[in-house]
Amino acid sequence: MNTGQFSEGSESDLDPGYVAGAVDLLGVLAYEELTTYQSLSVHAFSAPDLGGRVALCRYAVADFANVLRIEERLVELGSTLEEAMAPFTGVIDDLNRRTRAETWLEGLVKASVADGIVADFYRELARLVDPRTREVVKAVVAEGAKNVYLIEVVRRSIEPGTAEASRLSLWGRRLVGEALTMAQQVAADREAMGSLLVGTVERPGADLGEIGEILRRVTERHTERMARLGLTA
Amino acid sequence: MNTGQFSEGSESDLDPGYVAGAVDLLGVLAYEELTTYQSLSVHAFSAPDLGGRVALCRYAVADFANVLRIEERLVELGSTLEEAMAPFTGVIDDLNRRTRAETWLEGLVKASVADGIVADFYRELARLVDPRTREVVKAVVAEGAKNVYLIEVVRRSIEPGTAEASRLSLWGRRLVGEALTMAQQVAADREAMGSLLVGTVERPGADLGEIGEILRRVTERHTERMARLGLTA
Repeated sequence: MNTGQFSEGSESDLDPGYVAGAVDLLGVLAYEELTTYQSLSVHAFSAPDLGGRVALCRYAVADFANVLRIEERLVELGSTLEEAMAPFTGVIDDLNRRTRAETWLEGLVKASVADGIVADFYRELARLVDPRTREVVKAVVAEGAKNVYLIEVVRRSIEPGTAEASRLSLWGRRLVGEALTMAQQVAADREAMGSLLVGTVERPGADLGEIGEILRRVTERHTERMARLGLTA
Repeated sequence: MNTGQFSEGSESDLDPGYVAGAVDLLGVLAYEELTTYQSLSVHAFSAPDLGGRVALCRYAVADFANVLRIEERLVELGSTLEEAMAPFTGVIDDLNRRTRAETWLEGLVKASVADGIVADFYRELARLVDPRTREVVKAVVAEGAKNVYLIEVVRRSIEPGTAEASRLSLWGRRLVGEALTMAQQVAADREAMGSLLVGTVERPGADLGEIGEILRRVTERHTERMARLGLTA
């Protein structure tokens, strides 16, 4: 994987094909963060107590701060937040409709699992983008206090070996399946994103073997994350 | 109305009865801001476009920042956010259940009207509290960009004299009625808050005439606000 193809120059030095791919990448990430922020803010209504409610809101608001961070970079790249997110609302909204959490714990597991997968993916993809975009992506997906909190609450709330633990394990498996399907669909639908991933003659991306490697690592980290939650992947 | 009864000293100089009232006041305000932030974050899902959705989320997040600002003062007063909000969740949740917005515009009118009334009330009550609490309250209720935005969108979306305009006017009237009923209920239920309002022998509050004056001013400003929205109060 070649990551040295970017000069430290201004945005105008960047190849338009590359910029379209980077805008796509930031657009999906922004819409993920926006919907996560909104969903967690709603989900906080089902907290068992005020403390849990306020805690979840704190983390939700941090996700919205990420949206603004991404917006800044999109503007530098000559796009806007709305323009960049627009192509991805359908597929992400569909995913969210198919994976609506019914209970407080389902919502927390979803937040941890979905967020974790998105973060792992983007941490891998960050190597394919220019330094300034990479910096933004890394800041957005940095493991924050949110995940520590989510893992703590889920672990504390479920008894290993119980029916609820196995129900939530199944739920986690469904979430990862749906997320991977969505990721493939997005990469296939969006030419600019696809060419960012696999590269062009002038700008090598990840080859097929590497993409397989990325998927393997993302799945591996998902398994670890489920174990930390006290669930089986 | 006597507002000179507070020395510039530390929190420990404050009378415990006064502190209980101030904590109540901050507690209701915090819970108002928390539920507004959550409700607007949900309501943003019904925006007609991504631009409106992001705009509303920006304002919602600012309401959560207010919660944190209030929390800081509550801690200085020896309380916590959760403790202070707890007595008021029932009455505010009830109000929100009774006044659930069904459409995008109803939600915006509610945000503008409810927020406006709360802000007007607290701007009046701020005179009854110690300088540091007053500063926090004033910062929280400062007319922000949110109201300008809400008024702009509502005005642009409704045609005066149409059925929708009169439906939304009715809606605004219902909201103000419900809000005033709630305010009276809270003041009557909470002894500490009541004594903050009407004062004690050592610490005069507002007399009955002044409370009537406050209600008159709040209602007057509501009428002005409705007119700015393009609605009749």
